[in-house]
Amino acid sequence: MKDRTLLMIPGPIEFEPEVLAALGAPTMSHVDPDFIEVFGQALERMREVWLCPSGQPFVVAGSGMLAMEMAVANLIESGDKTLVLSTGVFGDRYGELLGRYGAEVTVLRSPLGDTIAPEKVEAALQANPYKLITSTHVDTSTGVRVDVKSLGALGREYSVLTVLDGVCSVAGEELRQEDWGIDVALTASQKAIGVPPGLALMVVSPRALAAWRERKSSVVNYYADWGNWLPIMEAYEARRSSYFGTPPVNLIFALNVSLRQILTEGMEARFARHRKLGTACKAAIRTLGLNQVPTDPSHAAATLTAPYYPEGIVGPEFLPKVKAAGAILAGGLHPEIKTRYFRIGHMGATRSGDLLATIGAIETGLRGCGYNFKLGAGLAAAQQTLQS
Amino acid sequence: MKDRTLLMIPGPIEFEPEVLAALGAPTMSHVDPDFIEVFGQALERMREVWLCPSGQPFVVAGSGMLAMEMAVANLIESGDKTLVLSTGVFGDRYGELLGRYGAEVTVLRSPLGDTIAPEKVEAALQANPYKLITSTHVDTSTGVRVDVKSLGALGREYSVLTVLDGVCSVAGEELRQEDWGIDVALTASQKAIGVPPGLALMVVSPRALAAWRERKSSVVNYYADWGNWLPIMEAYEARRSSYFGTPPVNLIFALNVSLRQILTEGMEARFARHRKLGTACKAAIRTLGLNQVPTDPSHAAATLTAPYYPEGIVGPEFLPKVKAAGAILAGGLHPEIKTRYFRIGHMGATRSGDLLATIGAIETGLRGCGYNFKLGAGLAAAQQTLQS
Repeated sequence: MKDRTLLMIPGPIEFEPEVLAALGAPTMSHVDPDFIEVFGQALERMREVWLCPSGQPFVVAGSGMLAMEMAVANLIESGDKTLVLSTGVFGDRYGELLGRYGAEVTVLRSPLGDTIAPEKVEAALQANPYKLITSTHVDTSTGVRVDVKSLGALGREYSVLTVLDGVCSVAGEELRQEDWGIDVALTASQKAIGVPPGLALMVVSPRALAAWRERKSSVVNYYADWGNWLPIMEAYEARRSSYFGTPPVNLIFALNVSLRQILTEGMEARFARHRKLGTACKAAIRTLGLNQVPTDPSHAAATLTAPYYPEGIVGPEFLPKVKAAGAILAGGLHPEIKTRYFRIGHMGATRSGDLLATIGAIETGLRGCGYNFKLGAGLAAAQQTLQS
Repeated sequence: MKDRTLLMIPGPIEFEPEVLAALGAPTMSHVDPDFIEVFGQALERMREVWLCPSGQPFVVAGSGMLAMEMAVANLIESGDKTLVLSTGVFGDRYGELLGRYGAEVTVLRSPLGDTIAPEKVEAALQANPYKLITSTHVDTSTGVRVDVKSLGALGREYSVLTVLDGVCSVAGEELRQEDWGIDVALTASQKAIGVPPGLALMVVSPRALAAWRERKSSVVNYYADWGNWLPIMEAYEARRSSYFGTPPVNLIFALNVSLRQILTEGMEARFARHRKLGTACKAAIRTLGLNQVPTDPSHAAATLTAPYYPEGIVGPEFLPKVKAAGAILAGGLHPEIKTRYFRIGHMGATRSGDLLATIGAIETGLRGCGYNFKLGAGLAAAQQTLQS
């Protein structure tokens, strides 16, 4: 069993006890009136969390990878031209995925740690007609955040569908799906949504559903086919049961609790809290003299921080010391720099105290590795930001 | 929250408190040594539960439908000839699914409530060369069980791959995957495996993996591609972490607890217990004068019972009365007879006492609907079988 050591990786994260209690409660029938009500509420609440009142939510058992594929499998037909904006591992993965469905894929890849300027995206859209752009709001492998608002605007201007991998952003980073004009915003439950892993989640715009309805070929992927799931989502939202596959009852109970907690906090307050946690963590890391993967704070994520190890310090020595001091961090993921950096997740239920405990553990780990710095300096920097 | 009314549908079912406690425990990192050990154990235990020592287990977040698709997506290439044995809704669904992947599909459909004789399967195999046969061990829509042992033997004799939808059978009905020569045996967590819904599970034979390796075309479905998951399963079983998608940590903890409980009971004892529960339930239903969907007891499932309502009794009147008396049953699923029958699940953690309570509730419901029978007769018939 997990002990009280803080889980500060970019997902799964620390979850609220009420969410875990809902997950572990005795399972109801998927046609029980109480479950129907809970599933219906969860779908309604997703629209509020995604800030997409006219979108269609989908909740399916699976990982974030399934959510990524669901968008593509429904919107792409063989030969469609697609533009992939890649700011890390997950952007590249979208390129591979699109290839499976016969799309012509152009990848616009940022230099490591950099974002992609809207001007470059616009130039690409001017040069070629695309059906669809994919973008990773926050690439978990680099901690780089892209400008989603501009992306949505370009998607409207050039009549290109926009698919946003929001796995490390939805319910943490500012995202206004409808105002910003994003067609599919997808995520997984174990990130800022605050529910243990096992749910693929997305909200789809009317424009994207229309594009799906106008397909000439059928969707190959049966489990990912919106045609199988849409009647189910519509039924449960209308407080009727309907069957395609058995819904993950316990996870949906947990999801509904977490969405209620998120909306009780309020989306604006939630965005502000994540922004503050992110800024505080980065201030601490900078004060401790560590560089970060994102090349500029203006495009660094609020949900995670990706610092390089100081000269001479390696993960297998450092990370266990941080864990012993009370916080579990993640190693690197990007193949080019995998052993040279680590990642701190701070999203969802993370409180100021959790972040301070984590910075404290990082200081202890650095000191244990013989790194020279003023003990408490990182904590002070974080606290000054948190209290500002 | 669910109250203590027994959930006696063909999944989700009543789960053991220890399984639910594992599900609701604080979430660990998917690279935590303790989670790696648990995932590794679960994979090893699956081989024992499936009785398939040389098989390759897969555990992926998803529903049983995903498990069905995973088998097909990996083994089928466009133009492959396939034979679908259909004994209900789920058999037919396999036909639709295979069509998506470009297979040429021949459906051998049993009359409603009947099974498919091995002789008919053999005649089909003699008449045409097939690459793959799909079969539903127990079709949840009819309660019909097919002869899997003969199917496996035919698959070997005619060099045809055998895919078994074991969603309503694995860990309940007798299944000896390796001895019987079944190539893929798949299920979902919420059935006799005894874990809340959210996991697609399967064990794949070396012959099926070889067939997958010899594919000429790549697998279109990325999330279902064994090529993405095999290295992950091999890594965790070798007690190393590896990443493709975030594993459903809590569900895998729960799975490992349930698999341990299953193996503590022992597979032979478990098969015998399910056989006894099934026989007892059917004896009670017969004694109460209700007909059943399976046309002969010899091909009726051990895991569920599918009785027709007596003349003049309808589900919307009867089922709530049974629920009020303590047991939740399922309505019909097969489109031809949907409103004319109901379904009782008795698998996994179901005890003799649960079955007796359920028969008692059915008697109360029948009496409440004005049906004429000797109160207690069903209970006595069940008890005589249970104690035999």
